[in-house]
Amino acid sequence: MNKIITIGREFGSGGRELGRRLAEELGFEYYDNEIITEISKHTALSEQYIKQIIECTPHQLFPITVGHSLTVHHDHAFHLVQSVYAAQEKIIKDLAEKSNCVIVGRCADYILKDYKPFRLFVYAEMESKVARCMARDDSLTEKQLRRKIRAVDKNRSRYYSFYTGNNWGARTNYDLCINTTNTEIKEIVPVISKIFE
Amino acid sequence: MNKIITIGREFGSGGRELGRRLAEELGFEYYDNEIITEISKHTALSEQYIKQIIECTPHQLFPITVGHSLTVHHDHAFHLVQSVYAAQEKIIKDLAEKSNCVIVGRCADYILKDYKPFRLFVYAEMESKVARCMARDDSLTEKQLRRKIRAVDKNRSRYYSFYTGNNWGARTNYDLCINTTNTEIKEIVPVISKIFE
Repeated sequence: MNKIITIGREFGSGGRELGRRLAEELGFEYYDNEIITEISKHTALSEQYIKQIIECTPHQLFPITVGHSLTVHHDHAFHLVQSVYAAQEKIIKDLAEKSNCVIVGRCADYILKDYKPFRLFVYAEMESKVARCMARDDSLTEKQLRRKIRAVDKNRSRYYSFYTGNNWGARTNYDLCINTTNTEIKEIVPVISKIFE
Repeated sequence: MNKIITIGREFGSGGRELGRRLAEELGFEYYDNEIITEISKHTALSEQYIKQIIECTPHQLFPITVGHSLTVHHDHAFHLVQSVYAAQEKIIKDLAEKSNCVIVGRCADYILKDYKPFRLFVYAEMESKVARCMARDDSLTEKQLRRKIRAVDKNRSRYYSFYTGNNWGARTNYDLCINTTNTEIKEIVPVISKIFE
Protein backbone atom coordinates (compact mmCIF):
# COMPACT_ATOMS: atom_id res chain seq x y z
CA MET A 1 0.00 0.00 0.00
CA ASN A 2 1.26 3.48 -0.84
CA LYS A 3 2.24 5.95 1.87
CA ILE A 4 -0.41 8.64 2.06
CA ILE A 5 -0.17 11.86 4.06
CA THR A 6 -3.29 13.98 4.36
CA ILE A 7 -3.16 17.55 5.60
CA GLY A 8 -5.98 19.48 7.20
CA ARG A 9 -5.02 23.08 7.89
CA GLU A 10 -6.26 26.37 9.19
CA PHE A 11 -6.13 29.19 6.66
CA GLY A 12 -2.83 31.05 7.05
CA SER A 13 -1.18 28.34 9.14
CA GLY A 14 1.25 27.40 6.39
CA GLY A 15 -0.29 23.94 5.99
CA ARG A 16 -0.15 24.08 2.23
CA GLU A 17 3.52 25.10 2.23
CA LEU A 18 4.23 22.36 4.72
CA GLY A 19 2.51 19.80 2.49
CA ARG A 20 4.36 20.95 -0.61
CA ARG A 21 7.75 20.96 1.07
CA LEU A 22 7.09 17.62 2.75
CA ALA A 23 6.20 16.06 -0.60
CA GLU A 24 9.39 17.50 -2.12
CA GLU A 25 11.52 16.25 0.77
CA LEU A 26 10.05 12.75 0.58
CA GLY A 27 9.76 12.54 -3.19
CA PHE A 28 6.00 12.03 -2.92
CA GLU A 29 3.39 13.39 -5.29
CA TYR A 30 1.64 16.52 -4.06
CA TYR A 31 -2.05 17.22 -4.66
CA ASP A 32 -3.93 20.34 -3.80
CA ASN A 33 -5.53 22.42 -6.56
CA GLU A 34 -4.71 19.54 -8.90
CA ILE A 35 -7.77 17.82 -7.48
CA ILE A 36 -10.01 20.70 -8.54
CA THR A 37 -8.54 20.46 -12.06
CA GLU A 38 -9.30 16.74 -12.13
CA ILE A 39 -12.85 17.27 -10.88
CA SER A 40 -13.29 19.79 -13.64
CA LYS A 41 -12.28 17.19 -16.23
CA HIS A 42 -14.62 14.59 -14.74
CA THR A 43 -17.67 16.81 -14.38
CA ALA A 44 -17.27 19.21 -17.28
CA LEU A 45 -17.68 22.07 -14.81
CA SER A 46 -15.20 24.94 -14.81
CA GLU A 47 -12.56 25.02 -12.08
CA GLN A 48 -13.88 28.39 -11.02
CA TYR A 49 -17.38 27.01 -10.63
CA ILE A 50 -16.18 23.95 -8.70
CA LYS A 51 -14.26 26.18 -6.32
CA GLN A 52 -17.39 28.22 -5.83
CA ILE A 53 -19.46 25.13 -5.08
CA ILE A 54 -16.84 23.82 -2.66
CA GLU A 55 -16.41 27.16 -0.95
CA CYS A 56 -20.14 27.66 -0.69
CA THR A 57 -20.41 24.60 1.53
CA PRO A 58 -23.46 22.38 1.44
CA HIS A 59 -25.01 24.16 4.42
CA GLN A 60 -25.25 27.37 2.50
CA LEU A 61 -26.82 25.63 -0.45
CA PHE A 62 -29.19 23.62 1.72
CA PRO A 63 -30.49 25.56 4.66
CA ILE A 64 -31.90 23.69 7.61
CA THR A 65 -35.39 24.01 6.14
CA VAL A 66 -34.40 22.02 3.08
CA GLY A 67 -36.97 19.34 3.86
CA HIS A 68 -39.75 21.87 3.65
CA SER A 69 -38.54 24.11 0.89
CA LEU A 70 -37.11 21.74 -1.69
CA THR A 71 -37.41 23.47 -5.00
CA VAL A 72 -36.14 22.75 -8.47
CA HIS A 73 -33.27 25.11 -7.74
CA HIS A 74 -32.30 23.23 -4.60
CA ASP A 75 -32.68 19.94 -6.36
CA HIS A 76 -30.31 21.03 -9.10
CA ALA A 77 -27.80 22.46 -6.61
CA PHE A 78 -28.00 19.26 -4.59
CA HIS A 79 -27.12 17.08 -7.57
CA LEU A 80 -24.33 19.42 -8.54
CA VAL A 81 -22.71 19.34 -5.12
CA GLN A 82 -23.19 15.60 -4.87
CA SER A 83 -21.60 15.03 -8.25
CA VAL A 84 -18.65 17.23 -7.36
CA TYR A 85 -18.13 15.36 -4.09
CA ALA A 86 -18.50 11.98 -5.81
CA ALA A 87 -15.95 12.99 -8.45
CA GLN A 88 -13.61 14.23 -5.75
CA GLU A 89 -13.92 10.97 -3.84
CA LYS A 90 -13.10 8.92 -6.90
CA ILE A 91 -10.17 11.12 -7.91
CA ILE A 92 -8.65 11.09 -4.43
CA LYS A 93 -8.89 7.30 -4.23
CA ASP A 94 -7.33 6.96 -7.68
CA LEU A 95 -4.46 9.22 -6.64
CA ALA A 96 -3.90 7.20 -3.47
CA GLU A 97 -3.75 4.02 -5.54
CA LYS A 98 -1.21 5.50 -7.93
CA SER A 99 1.74 6.41 -5.70
CA ASN A 100 2.95 7.78 -2.37
CA CYS A 101 1.43 11.22 -1.99
CA VAL A 102 0.57 14.24 0.12
CA ILE A 103 -3.01 15.48 -0.24
CA VAL A 104 -4.07 18.84 1.15
CA GLY A 105 -7.65 19.36 2.33
CA ARG A 106 -10.70 17.92 0.57
CA CYS A 107 -11.66 15.55 3.44
CA ALA A 108 -8.93 13.23 2.11
CA ASP A 109 -8.24 11.90 5.62
CA TYR A 110 -11.83 10.65 5.76
CA ILE A 111 -12.17 9.57 2.13
CA LEU A 112 -8.97 7.52 2.40
CA LYS A 113 -9.53 6.06 5.85
CA ASP A 114 -9.26 2.50 4.53
CA TYR A 115 -5.81 3.38 3.16
CA LYS A 116 -4.63 4.28 6.69
CA PRO A 117 -3.19 7.66 5.77
CA PHE A 118 -1.01 9.63 8.15
CA ARG A 119 -3.30 12.48 9.08
CA LEU A 120 -1.71 15.84 9.83
CA PHE A 121 -3.52 18.93 11.05
CA VAL A 122 -1.73 22.27 10.89
CA TYR A 123 -2.84 25.28 12.93
CA ALA A 124 -1.53 28.48 14.46
CA GLU A 125 -2.45 31.43 16.61
CA MET A 126 -4.41 34.20 14.88
CA GLU A 127 -1.54 36.72 15.07
CA SER A 128 0.76 34.27 13.35
CA LYS A 129 -1.80 33.46 10.64
CA VAL A 130 -2.39 37.15 9.94
CA ALA A 131 1.36 37.77 9.67
CA ARG A 132 1.80 34.80 7.34
CA CYS A 133 -1.03 35.97 5.08
CA MET A 134 0.31 39.53 5.04
CA ALA A 135 3.77 38.39 4.01
CA ARG A 136 2.17 36.63 1.04
CA ASP A 137 -0.22 39.39 -0.02
CA ASP A 138 -0.55 42.80 1.52
CA SER A 139 -3.70 43.87 -0.31
CA LEU A 140 -5.91 43.28 2.74
CA THR A 141 -5.79 45.10 6.06
CA GLU A 142 -5.20 43.20 9.27
CA LYS A 143 -8.87 43.51 10.16
CA GLN A 144 -9.95 42.22 6.76
CA LEU A 145 -7.53 39.32 7.04
CA ARG A 146 -8.83 38.29 10.45
CA ARG A 147 -12.34 38.28 9.02
CA LYS A 148 -11.21 36.27 5.99
CA ILE A 149 -9.33 33.72 8.11
CA ARG A 150 -12.36 33.18 10.32
CA ALA A 151 -14.70 32.90 7.33
CA VAL A 152 -12.52 30.44 5.39
CA ASP A 153 -12.03 28.22 8.43
CA LYS A 154 -15.74 28.31 9.25
CA ASN A 155 -16.44 27.04 5.75
CA ARG A 156 -13.76 24.36 5.98
CA SER A 157 -15.18 23.23 9.27
CA ARG A 158 -18.75 23.08 7.94
CA TYR A 159 -17.67 21.30 4.80
CA TYR A 160 -15.71 18.71 6.76
CA SER A 161 -18.50 18.11 9.27
CA PHE A 162 -21.09 17.80 6.51
CA TYR A 163 -19.24 15.06 4.66
CA THR A 164 -17.49 13.22 7.46
CA GLY A 165 -19.76 13.70 10.48
CA ASN A 166 -16.58 14.52 12.43
CA ASN A 167 -15.24 17.72 13.91
CA TRP A 168 -12.69 19.48 11.76
CA GLY A 169 -9.49 20.05 13.74
CA ALA A 170 -10.49 17.80 16.67
CA ARG A 171 -7.26 16.04 17.64
CA THR A 172 -8.83 12.57 17.68
CA ASN A 173 -9.24 12.72 13.89
CA TYR A 174 -5.52 13.23 13.32
CA ASP A 175 -2.22 11.49 14.01
CA LEU A 176 -0.27 14.68 14.51
CA CYS A 177 -1.39 18.26 15.11
CA ILE A 178 1.26 20.90 14.52
CA ASN A 179 1.14 24.46 15.80
CA THR A 180 3.15 26.60 13.38
CA THR A 181 3.09 29.79 15.47
CA ASN A 182 6.59 31.29 15.48
CA THR A 183 7.77 28.49 13.23
CA GLU A 184 9.53 28.53 9.89
CA ILE A 185 7.84 25.80 7.85
CA LYS A 186 11.02 24.97 5.94
CA GLU A 187 12.80 24.31 9.23
CA ILE A 188 10.29 21.80 10.59
CA VAL A 189 9.76 19.85 7.38
CA PRO A 190 13.04 17.88 7.59
CA VAL A 191 12.01 16.81 11.12
CA ILE A 192 8.48 15.79 10.15
CA SER A 193 9.77 13.91 7.13
CA LYS A 194 11.72 11.58 9.45
CA ILE A 195 8.40 10.02 10.50
CA PHE A 196 8.07 8.55 7.02
CA GLU A 197 11.58 7.26 6.50
CA MET B 1 17.05 30.27 28.92
CA ASN B 2 16.81 26.52 29.44
CA LYS B 3 14.95 24.28 27.02
CA ILE B 4 11.75 23.15 28.66
CA ILE B 5 9.39 20.50 27.34
CA THR B 6 6.03 20.08 29.05
CA ILE B 7 3.85 17.05 28.45
CA GLY B 8 0.11 16.86 28.89
CA ARG B 9 -1.20 13.36 28.31
CA GLU B 10 -4.29 11.18 28.35
CA PHE B 11 -4.09 8.30 30.79
CA GLY B 12 -2.80 5.21 28.96
CA SER B 13 -1.52 7.16 25.96
CA GLY B 14 2.12 6.47 26.81
CA GLY B 15 2.79 10.17 27.46
CA ARG B 16 4.86 9.47 30.56
CA GLU B 17 7.00 6.90 28.74
CA LEU B 18 7.40 9.36 25.88
CA GLY B 19 8.54 12.05 28.32
CA ARG B 20 10.99 9.76 30.05
CA ARG B 21 12.51 8.48 26.83
CA LEU B 22 12.66 11.95 25.33
CA ALA B 23 14.53 13.25 28.38
CA GLU B 24 16.95 10.31 28.12
CA GLU B 25 17.50 10.87 24.41
CA LEU B 26 18.14 14.59 24.86
CA GLY B 27 20.06 14.36 28.12
CA PHE B 28 17.44 16.55 29.83
CA GLU B 29 16.25 16.20 33.41
CA TYR B 30 12.92 14.41 33.76
CA TYR B 31 10.31 15.37 36.33
CA ASP B 32 7.08 13.59 37.05
CA ASN B 33 6.48 12.07 40.49
CA GLU B 34 9.62 13.90 41.60
CA ILE B 35 7.44 17.00 41.83
CA ILE B 36 5.11 15.31 44.31
CA THR B 37 8.15 14.35 46.41
CA GLU B 38 9.32 17.96 46.38
CA ILE B 39 5.88 19.28 47.31
CA SER B 40 5.90 16.83 50.19
CA LYS B 41 9.19 18.29 51.43
CA HIS B 42 7.90 21.87 51.11
CA THR B 43 4.53 21.34 52.74
CA ALA B 44 5.27 18.60 55.27
CA LEU B 45 2.37 16.64 53.82
CA SER B 46 2.82 13.00 52.89
CA GLU B 47 3.22 12.13 49.21
CA GLN B 48 0.18 9.91 49.50
CA TYR B 49 -1.89 12.76 50.87
CA ILE B 50 -0.69 15.19 48.20
CA LYS B 51 -1.59 12.69 45.48
CA GLN B 52 -5.02 12.39 47.05
CA ILE B 53 -5.50 16.16 47.08
CA ILE B 54 -4.33 16.46 43.50
CA GLU B 55 -6.44 13.57 42.31
CA CYS B 56 -9.47 14.88 44.14
CA THR B 57 -9.44 18.02 42.00
CA PRO B 58 -10.58 21.33 43.39
CA HIS B 59 -14.09 20.91 41.98
CA GLN B 60 -14.69 17.92 44.16
CA LEU B 61 -13.46 19.73 47.22
CA PHE B 62 -15.37 22.90 46.39
CA PRO B 63 -18.73 22.16 44.85
CA ILE B 64 -20.49 24.85 42.88
CA THR B 65 -22.38 25.91 45.99
CA VAL B 66 -19.15 26.79 47.80
CA GLY B 67 -20.23 30.41 48.19
CA HIS B 68 -23.24 29.34 50.16
CA SER B 69 -21.90 26.45 52.14
CA LEU B 70 -18.43 27.50 53.19
CA THR B 71 -17.65 25.59 56.35
CA VAL B 72 -14.58 25.11 58.49
CA HIS B 73 -13.96 21.89 56.63
CA HIS B 74 -14.08 23.61 53.26
CA ASP B 75 -11.94 26.43 54.52
CA HIS B 76 -9.28 24.00 55.69
CA ALA B 77 -9.43 22.03 52.46
CA PHE B 78 -9.20 25.24 50.47
CA HIS B 79 -6.00 26.32 52.19
CA LEU B 80 -4.55 22.86 51.80
CA VAL B 81 -5.18 22.73 48.08
CA GLN B 82 -3.95 26.27 47.62
CA SER B 83 -0.74 25.56 49.51
CA VAL B 84 -0.11 22.42 47.48
CA TYR B 85 -0.65 24.33 44.23
CA ALA B 86 1.54 27.21 45.40
CA ALA B 87 4.32 24.80 46.36
CA GLN B 88 3.97 23.05 43.03
CA GLU B 89 4.20 26.34 41.16
CA LYS B 90 7.36 27.32 42.98
CA ILE B 91 9.00 23.93 42.53
CA ILE B 92 8.22 23.79 38.83
CA LYS B 93 9.66 27.25 38.27
CA ASP B 94 12.77 26.34 40.25
CA LEU B 95 13.26 23.21 38.16
CA ALA B 96 12.86 25.20 34.94
CA GLU B 97 15.52 27.64 36.14
CA LYS B 98 17.94 24.84 36.97
CA SER B 99 18.44 23.04 33.65
CA ASN B 100 16.90 21.76 30.42
CA CYS B 101 14.06 19.46 31.40
CA VAL B 102 10.94 17.50 30.53
CA ILE B 103 8.03 17.97 32.93
CA VAL B 104 4.99 15.69 32.81
CA GLY B 105 1.58 17.01 33.83
CA ARG B 106 0.99 19.41 36.73
CA CYS B 107 -0.15 22.37 34.52
CA ALA B 108 3.55 22.97 33.84
CA ASP B 109 2.78 24.34 30.37
CA TYR B 110 0.71 27.07 31.99
CA ILE B 111 2.90 27.67 35.05
CA LEU B 112 5.94 28.06 32.82
CA LYS B 113 4.36 30.10 30.04
CA ASP B 114 6.89 32.91 30.50
CA TYR B 115 9.67 30.39 29.90
CA LYS B 116 8.22 29.57 26.46
CA PRO B 117 8.21 25.80 26.92
CA PHE B 118 7.61 23.42 24.05
CA ARG B 119 4.17 22.07 24.92
CA LEU B 120 3.39 18.50 23.91
CA PHE B 121 0.05 16.77 24.29
CA VAL B 122 -0.09 12.99 23.95
CA TYR B 123 -3.35 11.14 23.27
CA ALA B 124 -4.67 7.94 21.75
CA GLU B 125 -7.82 6.06 20.86
CA MET B 126 -9.55 4.29 23.73
CA GLU B 127 -8.73 0.78 22.39
CA SER B 128 -5.08 1.65 22.26
CA LYS B 129 -5.08 3.14 25.77
CA VAL B 130 -6.79 0.06 27.18
CA ALA B 131 -4.27 -2.22 25.48
CA ARG B 132 -1.36 -0.14 26.77
CA CYS B 133 -2.70 -0.22 30.33
CA MET B 134 -3.34 -3.97 30.13
CA ALA B 135 0.19 -4.68 29.00
CA ARG B 136 1.43 -2.84 32.08
CA ASP B 137 -0.95 -4.31 34.62
CA ASP B 138 -3.57 -6.97 33.99
CA SER B 139 -5.31 -6.75 37.36
CA LEU B 140 -8.25 -4.78 35.91
CA THR B 141 -10.76 -5.96 33.36
CA GLU B 142 -11.21 -4.11 30.08
CA LYS B 143 -14.43 -2.57 31.36
CA GLN B 144 -12.80 -1.42 34.59
CA LEU B 145 -9.92 0.06 32.64
CA ARG B 146 -12.20 2.04 30.36
CA ARG B 147 -13.93 3.43 33.43
CA LYS B 148 -10.60 4.26 35.08
CA ILE B 149 -9.22 5.96 31.94
CA ARG B 150 -12.32 8.12 31.63
CA ALA B 151 -12.25 9.00 35.35
CA VAL B 152 -8.56 9.91 35.45
CA ASP B 153 -8.83 12.07 32.34
CA LYS B 154 -11.94 13.78 33.64
CA ASN B 155 -10.00 14.73 36.76
CA ARG B 156 -7.01 15.92 34.77
CA SER B 157 -9.26 18.00 32.61
CA ARG B 158 -11.02 19.59 35.62
CA TYR B 159 -7.76 20.21 37.42
CA TYR B 160 -6.25 21.88 34.37
CA SER B 161 -9.31 24.03 33.69
CA PHE B 162 -9.55 25.08 37.33
CA TYR B 163 -5.99 26.39 37.51
CA THR B 164 -5.41 27.62 33.97
CA GLY B 165 -8.85 28.64 32.74
CA ASN B 166 -8.01 26.76 29.52
CA ASN B 167 -9.30 23.54 28.02
CA TRP B 168 -7.12 20.53 28.70
CA GLY B 169 -6.14 18.86 25.42
CA ALA B 170 -7.40 21.71 23.20
CA ARG B 171 -4.84 21.93 20.41
CA THR B 172 -4.42 25.71 20.73
CA ASN B 173 -2.74 25.23 24.13
CA TYR B 174 -0.01 23.01 22.68
CA ASP B 175 2.76 23.15 20.09
CA LEU B 176 2.44 19.53 19.07
CA CYS B 177 -0.30 16.97 19.70
CA ILE B 178 0.72 13.36 19.13
CA ASN B 179 -1.68 10.47 18.63
CA THR B 180 0.09 7.32 19.87
CA THR B 181 -2.53 4.84 18.61
CA ASN B 182 -0.70 1.93 16.94
CA THR B 183 2.60 3.55 17.78
CA GLU B 184 5.63 2.25 19.62
CA ILE B 185 6.75 5.12 21.84
CA LYS B 186 10.40 4.15 21.60
CA GLU B 187 10.22 4.39 17.81
CA ILE B 188 8.84 7.92 17.67
CA VAL B 189 11.06 9.44 20.36
CA PRO B 190 14.18 9.72 18.15
CA VAL B 191 12.05 11.62 15.61
CA ILE B 192 10.52 13.98 18.17
CA SER B 193 13.90 14.64 19.73
CA LYS B 194 15.10 16.13 16.41
CA ILE B 195 12.88 19.15 17.11
CA PHE B 196 15.18 20.10 19.97
CA GLU B 197 18.55 19.57 18.33
